[in-house]
Amino acid sequence: MNPPEALQWSVENCTIGRAMEILGEKWTILVLRETFSGVRRFDDMREHTGIPRQVLTNRLATLVGQGLLRREPYQEPGSRIRHEYRLTQKGLDLYPMLVAIKEWGDRYLADPAGPPLSMVHRDCGHEMQAELHCAGGHAVRTYRDIVPRPGPGARRR
Amino acid sequence: MNPPEALQWSVENCTIGRAMEILGEKWTILVLRETFSGVRRFDDMREHTGIPRQVLTNRLATLVGQGLLRREPYQEPGSRIRHEYRLTQKGLDLYPMLVAIKEWGDRYLADPAGPPLSMVHRDCGHEMQAELHCAGGHAVRTYRDIVPRPGPGARRR
Repeated sequence: MNPPEALQWSVENCTIGRAMEILGEKWTILVLRETFSGVRRFDDMREHTGIPRQVLTNRLATLVGQGLLRREPYQEPGSRIRHEYRLTQKGLDLYPMLVAIKEWGDRYLADPAGPPLSMVHRDCGHEMQAELHCAGGHAVRTYRDIVPRPGPGARRR
Repeated sequence: MNPPEALQWSVENCTIGRAMEILGEKWTILVLRETFSGVRRFDDMREHTGIPRQVLTNRLATLVGQGLLRREPYQEPGSRIRHEYRLTQKGLDLYPMLVAIKEWGDRYLADPAGPPLSMVHRDCGHEMQAELHCAGGHAVRTYRDIVPRPGPGARRR
């Protein structure tokens, strides 16, 4: 198998990483970013991101335990069986969050040269946008157009 | 000023909180959730979320320092001047991320009764969706329809 294309590129100026430095503990999101980029092997992830070995072990165990990743065996010629990590449907369903974090990071935290990563729609080649819509099909461009309401599971305090 | 409506509701079963328990350090995102819900005062946030006082102080300082929140003075009759925390444009621009986290949490982590919070479009009353679109206007419903590419700031390793 060819190494994933993503491994050719630096994550040094990654805007998702920068966003998560501000927003919380970054490693879990960065592990997800790697798997979304097709980087699925422990050593590749560690080497690509600089995650400390023990932290990566812990984060992968949590993500597998929570059902966002599954382990799949593979074997290189002459090596023992190892495992790679693949997104489950539950993990894949996080991509709107990842795109939203990336877009915000691109806007506020990118280098002057621009963001290191672009995400385009496979069919038409246009850039992805984190712009939201309502179920009625309207684009919603600002939070001021959103009204929070108690949902079906709301509990009074 | 009337207390924010959000304070009437429990955050015990909040799906954003549950998502962030899995995804990383949750407090920063929960502080943002409070400000998005109109909960702007230190004591209200602390009491509503159970954030330890020192953690809340630190997270607010970071969010102000990073320009996501600004402090604004207010004064209740007979009290000294205090400050409340309001979202800046940079902070407000995180709402697609918050909606995306909420939608994922709602799907996978809600109580049987359903999610505690609903977000609807002000104009038409339809529920918000984290469904993404590309700049060409097409709905993109799965990550498999997205192609990652080196962006303008990509650096070879």
